[in-house]
Amino acid sequence: MSRFAGRAGPIRLGMVGGGQGAFIGAVHRIAARMDGHFELVAGALSSTPETARESGAALGLAPDRIYDDFETMARREARLKDGIEAVAIVTPNHLHFAPARAFLRRGIHVICDKPMTATGAEAKKLAAEAAKSDALFVLTHNYSGYPMIRQARAMVAEGFLGRLRGVQVEYVQDWLATPVESQGSKQAEWRTDPARSGAGGALGDIGTHAFQLAAFVTGEAPEAVSADLTSFVTGRRLDDDARVLLRYASGAKGALWCSQVAPGNENRLTLRVYGEDGGLEWSQENPERLVATRLGEAPRLMTRAVAGPEATRLQRVPSGHPEGYLEAFANLYAEAAAAIRAAREGAAAPAGTLFPDVGDGLAGLRFVEACVASAKRDGRWTALS
Amino acid sequence: MSRFAGRAGPIRLGMVGGGQGAFIGAVHRIAARMDGHFELVAGALSSTPETARESGAALGLAPDRIYDDFETMARREARLKDGIEAVAIVTPNHLHFAPARAFLRRGIHVICDKPMTATGAEAKKLAAEAAKSDALFVLTHNYSGYPMIRQARAMVAEGFLGRLRGVQVEYVQDWLATPVESQGSKQAEWRTDPARSGAGGALGDIGTHAFQLAAFVTGEAPEAVSADLTSFVTGRRLDDDARVLLRYASGAKGALWCSQVAPGNENRLTLRVYGEDGGLEWSQENPERLVATRLGEAPRLMTRAVAGPEATRLQRVPSGHPEGYLEAFANLYAEAAAAIRAAREGAAAPAGTLFPDVGDGLAGLRFVEACVASAKRDGRWTALS
Amino acid sequence: MSRFAGRAGPIRLGMVGGGQGAFIGAVHRIAARMDGHFELVAGALSSTPETARESGAALGLAPDRIYDDFETMARREARLKDGIEAVAIVTPNHLHFAPARAFLRRGIHVICDKPMTATGAEAKKLAAEAAKSDALFVLTHNYSGYPMIRQARAMVAEGFLGRLRGVQVEYVQDWLATPVESQGSKQAEWRTDPARSGAGGALGDIGTHAFQLAAFVTGEAPEAVSADLTSFVTGRRLDDDARVLLRYASGAKGALWCSQVAPGNENRLTLRVYGEDGGLEWSQENPERLVATRLGEAPRLMTRAVAGPEATRLQRVPSGHPEGYLEAFANLYAEAAAAIRAAREGAAAPAGTLFPDVGDGLAGLRFVEACVASAKRDGRWTALS
Amino acid sequence: MSRFAGRAGPIRLGMVGGGQGAFIGAVHRIAARMDGHFELVAGALSSTPETARESGAALGLAPDRIYDDFETMARREARLKDGIEAVAIVTPNHLHFAPARAFLRRGIHVICDKPMTATGAEAKKLAAEAAKSDALFVLTHNYSGYPMIRQARAMVAEGFLGRLRGVQVEYVQDWLATPVESQGSKQAEWRTDPARSGAGGALGDIGTHAFQLAAFVTGEAPEAVSADLTSFVTGRRLDDDARVLLRYASGAKGALWCSQVAPGNENRLTLRVYGEDGGLEWSQENPERLVATRLGEAPRLMTRAVAGPEATRLQRVPSGHPEGYLEAFANLYAEAAAAIRAAREGAAAPAGTLFPDVGDGLAGLRFVEACVASAKRDGRWTALS
Repeated sequence: MSRFAGRAGPIRLGMVGGGQGAFIGAVHRIAARMDGHFELVAGALSSTPETARESGAALGLAPDRIYDDFETMARREARLKDGIEAVAIVTPNHLHFAPARAFLRRGIHVICDKPMTATGAEAKKLAAEAAKSDALFVLTHNYSGYPMIRQARAMVAEGFLGRLRGVQVEYVQDWLATPVESQGSKQAEWRTDPARSGAGGALGDIGTHAFQLAAFVTGEAPEAVSADLTSFVTGRRLDDDARVLLRYASGAKGALWCSQVAPGNENRLTLRVYGEDGGLEWSQENPERLVATRLGEAPRLMTRAVAGPEATRLQRVPSGHPEGYLEAFANLYAEAAAAIRAAREGAAAPAGTLFPDVGDGLAGLRFVEACVASAKRDGRWTALS
Repeated sequence: MSRFAGRAGPIRLGMVGGGQGAFIGAVHRIAARMDGHFELVAGALSSTPETARESGAALGLAPDRIYDDFETMARREARLKDGIEAVAIVTPNHLHFAPARAFLRRGIHVICDKPMTATGAEAKKLAAEAAKSDALFVLTHNYSGYPMIRQARAMVAEGFLGRLRGVQVEYVQDWLATPVESQGSKQAEWRTDPARSGAGGALGDIGTHAFQLAAFVTGEAPEAVSADLTSFVTGRRLDDDARVLLRYASGAKGALWCSQVAPGNENRLTLRVYGEDGGLEWSQENPERLVATRLGEAPRLMTRAVAGPEATRLQRVPSGHPEGYLEAFANLYAEAAAAIRAAREGAAAPAGTLFPDVGDGLAGLRFVEACVASAKRDGRWTALS
Repeated sequence: MSRFAGRAGPIRLGMVGGGQGAFIGAVHRIAARMDGHFELVAGALSSTPETARESGAALGLAPDRIYDDFETMARREARLKDGIEAVAIVTPNHLHFAPARAFLRRGIHVICDKPMTATGAEAKKLAAEAAKSDALFVLTHNYSGYPMIRQARAMVAEGFLGRLRGVQVEYVQDWLATPVESQGSKQAEWRTDPARSGAGGALGDIGTHAFQLAAFVTGEAPEAVSADLTSFVTGRRLDDDARVLLRYASGAKGALWCSQVAPGNENRLTLRVYGEDGGLEWSQENPERLVATRLGEAPRLMTRAVAGPEATRLQRVPSGHPEGYLEAFANLYAEAAAAIRAAREGAAAPAGTLFPDVGDGLAGLRFVEACVASAKRDGRWTALS
Repeated sequence: MSRFAGRAGPIRLGMVGGGQGAFIGAVHRIAARMDGHFELVAGALSSTPETARESGAALGLAPDRIYDDFETMARREARLKDGIEAVAIVTPNHLHFAPARAFLRRGIHVICDKPMTATGAEAKKLAAEAAKSDALFVLTHNYSGYPMIRQARAMVAEGFLGRLRGVQVEYVQDWLATPVESQGSKQAEWRTDPARSGAGGALGDIGTHAFQLAAFVTGEAPEAVSADLTSFVTGRRLDDDARVLLRYASGAKGALWCSQVAPGNENRLTLRVYGEDGGLEWSQENPERLVATRLGEAPRLMTRAVAGPEATRLQRVPSGHPEGYLEAFANLYAEAAAAIRAAREGAAAPAGTLFPDVGDGLAGLRFVEACVASAKRDGRWTALS
């Protein structure tokens, strides 16, 4: 039983990172707010104190809940009677580990952006911390919040594909096609900086999403990879394009392609999975549709209207009224809220509650590091140990 | 200057209708909450007192802000120091007029679902009330909140089409293909009941959306209609399918088709407009895309990434991260918030603020009544006087 | 038994019209040749003798089989031992009737382009001629040759839709968006000239295709129309845009839109039909796909791979290898060939043989004339008597 | 100058293979006939004499032009006054080399199906034969006959992409998802038999198409491959799925995936190419459309209507009237015809004439063999020497 047992109303949330000019922090705030499950009450929104203050004020935080650093915030909020029950960590990759550990150690639930950490070593340590903590750790691989992805996962689990044979997953963008990191793009700056991003560029930023999505849907993760990483833009220090072959213990094969330099692609995350008996295809830019084909039959254009409860239990509006990126993100927050409320009373999350966690985070880092290792050895097949 | 001048934080919002089991009330609440512009603090959520109470409690309203009827709510909230500044009216059509008038008369801004009223006579009276009131009247023709619809409107205004020639607008569903109104669907019950819906069935429920959308984008409204209305489902008392030809003063021609009995259509609202020099095509079920063709050139697949500020000023996430129905709805709430905040200080809404209002509502009722009149006279061309 | 009984090899074909610069004549020739069923051996290819000669020579016709006029050709070929067994008539509309009659009277099978004639009076007379003749009359409403249209027709016949409720058919182009008829386009010249086209412009040229296609698939033809015809281009003497409401004896309703002035549309012929139990959607520009939805189920993307024998009996390559416009056209020639070969022996065409005939042609002219009459009376509902 | 100098009329064509029950032979015959450029007059249609006779008779060949074997045919036709000028070779892969050599040595032009031979050694020898012969060698990589592929190639050549960065090419089917080769499918039997297909299964059958298409459009061929080959169906002796990473001398990277066991894919050949400045996307199942994006602009949906002369010079009908697989195939025959007619007079083919030749064939076999070698060494990068 937590000290919040019996509480009503929205869950009190803090945020680390996400100050003015940030992208993903605002997304987390909308996702947290959309269904009324969370209320943002505290923040260490920037490592620059002035920005932290201004950002907090703009968000309507009480002045004494605006912190200059996450350590102070963790320490103080843990003692406040109405302190935060959960925290969203939305900093660059290299600043996930320390705050996540600090809050987990104080029993405050962590909702952390991906990739989980900047290095595999950190990821391992964080996994150990999470295992010791009573607090929950939720990793926002938000694409797994899409209803039709839930539907795909459920169909695979029920045997729609039969034995898995092939996985094609791609996450393709074009916003880094030119050296925008040297032209004032803050978003590009840290993502192309090994000190802040870790060993993977596109691989860490979007490749981990693709990797997680494929595993989430198929229920299988590759055991080995063969990778070819490229930095197409002159002077870029991390990969902006990665082509990876995948091998599964089951005998399935796959390919993952992520790129941030392919003109005409905004945020094209697509997943295609094929088995002995059927195939499933989904695209993030048209996320309400899942194409499902049983071998020998016509493809079916599935939407939420014909999907099962795994897909529709979190929906807000009927099929035909498009839910998108923010709703999928908010679905993870809704899952987190359900788990947090159950945890207050010492209970397990309600049946069906589903969110990426420290295991997904660890797998993601292993994937990045295996790809980097493979690429360094000219594509040698490398185990995801 | 309003009594709320200088206030900070979210706008206090009340709600009429939208109790448990309702559909559109929940949508309004999410839309109001998404960007943090509004805070729901009061409600007359149902005409059944018990449902009103339970619904209010479930939403976390203070017990003394849960009302049995909108009259009491309007009267009391107008006097409270922290009373509501705006109200959302989300009742069936026949219950729009009276509460809208009550709140407008007390200077409380009204955000009202469509169609504006059940009859043209009410619409006229409400228009007069709105003209007399200092309060704003916002009509939630939510599809006009989609970014790419804003883009289309801007392009038409800038002359992309040249002189308008043709308008094809459709709003097609299939959820009323069987007599669900006699099988327990509350949503279907009132929509097929002339006493609650008014003279139009599909025409009022979705035809008015299609009509408004076409006018919103083209900047032109037809001057006359020729309509063929059908009730395909046995025993249904209102049209569930309407085919309407349109004539514009400019010489343009059009067709509007709305149906709720066409299998395979969930919520297919599509708009195609053509002029001397170009064409534009948009579909609500894939709302992030606008196909724009200059005569003789290749169609361009426009997204927010290449759209102008009219489309993107309200966006929350970059193009490629799909925004959908709820975001479009929330855009109208964001527009309303901007206008309300300006109105507090006696100022006009910020440049570019755009929402459907009493004029759109009046036009919608005129459209419904002209169609009904035309249909009764076997399709005779009937003016939208 | 015909004088060609027992003959082997391709059917000897003549052609009226289709000289150099013509469009549809070349299409007929490819369609006739594609499957090896016909061999072009004679022609009255142009009313200008010199063009007739040059065109015939270019096509490799023997000099004595190149005619200056169809009358001579009909008379002489009927007497030749190796004379033509069939003739393709590919002249402008006003020049269909006389040659069709001439060949029918001589027992030579006629394959005639659409619309069947320029006027309803001619159509009636031609129908009478065809009834008296032993020769076949095939009308090339070529879109009814598409495999997935055959599939749609079969599904409707088998009850997939249940009772028909709605028909939406459109045929939209943009090539007449400007006055190209005064800028040297021969194709546009005669199509916009009442003396050569008849009373319908877009209506006759493409509206008749749309009308026929809807009837072909649904098995029902409207009993009355209400039409609004427009000539958008200044100085044009025939409609370039027609919006028509349809009423069926069964209670079904429909709308037909044809336009040649809608930018961004090349040759967009689309058909959507809805019934109590299901819906079907097809588009000519992506003709290998039929979207079939049973009410309450996911839409199925049908291709030839899952279609029945009605769709696939004429296919040349497996599904996935796109067949298009020319193959659909050639399918009608293949049907004609089967019927002609059967007719030689006095037999009926093989089971399943299906092509538009004089009945379709007559219905098309009635449709055009009813629309023109309705439009003249401001859209009054007008019977297709 | 050839012995056919000055001849008029269709080119006399022979065929090796393509007897009853064959697939690609019929396709070649339609392609040859479609535009009237060729006339089939001789054939060694089957290695079974009886089938050869029956097939020849069914095709209307004169009895003395039906041969039991290609050797006799080559010898005799070369001497006939009206002997064949070209031959189509449509046998299984292992039976390409010998007849191709036989006809080339007699100065008879060869139109050969792909892959060019069963082994790289044969390919090399055939290349040498072709170099020595006056006769043309045309390899029917038919997908390079699609107009929008020609357009893509022209755009790349004109610099639309800027420097090439990425190539994604896929050719995916599902017809071999089960062991149909042991269930009576003749087509599957030889394609899964190393003795008849060569070292590649899917790789040879469809992978070579994908490889050639990418090179045709980009003008670059990879210098090395890393391949993972799989035989998913139990007992199958050749790959039915191949995932291949590509490296180009220019620094570009790519991936090629071919599979014949992915449910829901009929004949999905897709090509996407990206460069510094733009991207192009094309899909064989919707071949009339090319999506072209300049970095930072909206994607354009190009069709033949807006394409250049490289795309449209062979078209038969205007854009919007879909041309498909057979037309693309016939385009190669049209190219071959133009080259053959020019060769008669000792002239070069007309400017713009473009068809895959012995170089493409050699490159395809090198690709197959490099992939097989790479796969055997666990994906080691292997040069396409």
